[in-house]
Amino acid sequence: MEWKIVGIIAAVCTTTGFIPQIIRGVRTKKLEDISPIMYILLIFGLSLWLSYGIHLGDMIIIAANAAGLSFSVFILILRYKYMRQRK
Amino acid sequence: MEWKIVGIIAAVCTTTGFIPQIIRGVRTKKLEDISPIMYILLIFGLSLWLSYGIHLGDMIIIAANAAGLSFSVFILILRYKYMRQRK
Repeated sequence: MEWKIVGIIAAVCTTTGFIPQIIRGVRTKKLEDISPIMYILLIFGLSLWLSYGIHLGDMIIIAANAAGLSFSVFILILRYKYMRQRK
Repeated sequence: MEWKIVGIIAAVCTTTGFIPQIIRGVRTKKLEDISPIMYILLIFGLSLWLSYGIHLGDMIIIAANAAGLSFSVFILILRYKYMRQRK
């Protein structure tokens, strides 16, 4: 049971980590330094994790990866938006 | 068995995603736009995942999170190094 809590805290940290990145991007209107390839790999990997969670019927895996996936897509869209505005 | 392969591919994508970020940072010598809070949360979360993997004795979880943890620490160190050089 304690280990399940460790897993939940771990999932919360690795998922909510995207939020300060979004806040920073929206504030500075700059996301040039982040690697789009990193986020494309993340989106692909998190989609697989999500399907794995659906297969297992594990709500923690589903929720963490659905959130992480949405945040990653949003960061990538913001990056392209800000890059176009600077051209 | 097929789902184990999905899990391995997912882990490879979400872990190796840090590599293009490192390459981009080293090339441009700029990592200003990445959020340090994101990486601090990631380092904390991946450390918990690693301890969870050690507890389970699961080599995939251990390897993926040990690699992700090392890459995250490296990106954060690079960021501070480049920020100091620009001052």
